[in-house]
Amino acid sequence: MIVIVEKIQQFLTDTIQKYDFQGVVVGISGGIDSALVAGLCTRALGNEKVFGLLMPERDSATDTLEDSILVCRHFQIPYRVKKISPILRKMGVYRLQPPAQLFPRRIQEAYVRNKWESVGTEDTYLANLRGQGSKEFMRGVAYSRAKHRTRMCCLYLEAEQKGYAVVGTTNRTEMLTGLYVKWGDDSVDIEPLLHLYKRQVFQLAKDIGVPDRIIQKPPTPDLVPGITDEFAFRMTYEELDRILEKITEGGDLNSEDPAKVGRVQTIMEYASKFKMRNVRMPIDQEERG
Amino acid sequence: MIVIVEKIQQFLTDTIQKYDFQGVVVGISGGIDSALVAGLCTRALGNEKVFGLLMPERDSATDTLEDSILVCRHFQIPYRVKKISPILRKMGVYRLQPPAQLFPRRIQEAYVRNKWESVGTEDTYLANLRGQGSKEFMRGVAYSRAKHRTRMCCLYLEAEQKGYAVVGTTNRTEMLTGLYVKWGDDSVDIEPLLHLYKRQVFQLAKDIGVPDRIIQKPPTPDLVPGITDEFAFRMTYEELDRILEKITEGGDLNSEDPAKVGRVQTIMEYASKFKMRNVRMPIDQEERG
Repeated sequence: MIVIVEKIQQFLTDTIQKYDFQGVVVGISGGIDSALVAGLCTRALGNEKVFGLLMPERDSATDTLEDSILVCRHFQIPYRVKKISPILRKMGVYRLQPPAQLFPRRIQEAYVRNKWESVGTEDTYLANLRGQGSKEFMRGVAYSRAKHRTRMCCLYLEAEQKGYAVVGTTNRTEMLTGLYVKWGDDSVDIEPLLHLYKRQVFQLAKDIGVPDRIIQKPPTPDLVPGITDEFAFRMTYEELDRILEKITEGGDLNSEDPAKVGRVQTIMEYASKFKMRNVRMPIDQEERG
Repeated sequence: MIVIVEKIQQFLTDTIQKYDFQGVVVGISGGIDSALVAGLCTRALGNEKVFGLLMPERDSATDTLEDSILVCRHFQIPYRVKKISPILRKMGVYRLQPPAQLFPRRIQEAYVRNKWESVGTEDTYLANLRGQGSKEFMRGVAYSRAKHRTRMCCLYLEAEQKGYAVVGTTNRTEMLTGLYVKWGDDSVDIEPLLHLYKRQVFQLAKDIGVPDRIIQKPPTPDLVPGITDEFAFRMTYEELDRILEKITEGGDLNSEDPAKVGRVQTIMEYASKFKMRNVRMPIDQEERG
């Protein structure tokens, strides 16, 4: 995997130079993807040229901030904590969901998971991708997505003042399955992980020495309490990646559970349809009048 | 031009149906592009399915809100005014520029225009596209762009609750010259004007009966006081569109001022380079390890 690390470093150095950026800003979430990106950027550009922005909010897991700081200290990059709760409050985001701080975190998590599973007619992850459902469900969709979009605004506000690039953390597994927020965490200047399946992210993170604590924790979008990636997918990353890779690279699917293969195929279809970016009207030369 | 109107209406109806949207949200700015989009959406879907979101802020022109309401009333669409100043304040945007409300609007405008022209070494519009310059200049870049990005967040917060699409207002002239904010007003679900030069926007606006007051006012991004589109381009829309169209459609440029042709070409180059969306690492099959 060392070849991959070197190729990514070269890609980062070349891109920064080509577009005349002075450095990079990375949104550090305490998860493995942003930790890997921070590490790769540090190796490519030197730690002084990498800036970590930490943006916890009301619903962030209790270890989010602590783990994010651990990552910044580990790679010795300058960072700043910018709590986005006050922004979300003024935007009207928190009005969409009752505050739950009075309840212990475990109760909040169980409550949200229970609600997630009781959406009813449709697989909740698919309903989320499609963005249509009951009034309450739609409020939840709007509620969670506003967080990543607001983070994107904050990342650019920081980056543009410094002449830095915003570097993204989305990987190939997330892109294919739609596990990102359109115009949120997918909206960056440079994407160094977009060609890597999650299993490769795990491998590279080990290779470049991301702290064990970060590698071990269950991946989660950390947008609502209790919903981890694997909970949403209803399968492990190992299964998901294996099936995804067989579908995209043309492997033998006969040894896989047909129900899971079907679900992954539907997820991929929904992701490519409903996470479409701008639908544009085709330019029709004859129509110029 | 009636054929064009009908084609756009058909495109809107088809797209809404294909992606299962319940209606559309349009950010109404009081300018001609969003007025045209509101009108076209109303014709395509009926006024009840079109929702106008009005998002003035501290630096918006004095007639912005009034003109926006005029547009909504004219097309009889439901609308809501959401002042984004409190959000921008919490985000730290206003800290980047001293408040100028104590001065009359005309003084503010003259001050900003003077500053714009004194940036120095480089054509200010190009410097803005490139996003690099003095510390003060960069603060200005970050400051103005945060506004359109915040509006994008608010449009989606509204749209996703309703199951509506966000419809964009960017036209072909703006796209080719980079007159939009990356991950801001360019980040929408459906783009019905992206194939039209500004002169066609003017024509269609007349055809579908956008109020004269909206058609007559000088187009402006309305992000900082005093900077209209034509001031930034240093030429009229008529000249710009004529040259742009000759460049893109292969017309005879000999009758044009060579300095202006050169400037338009440079603007187009800068726009396509520095408004790049995600720079992705190419997927290299052999590297999968």
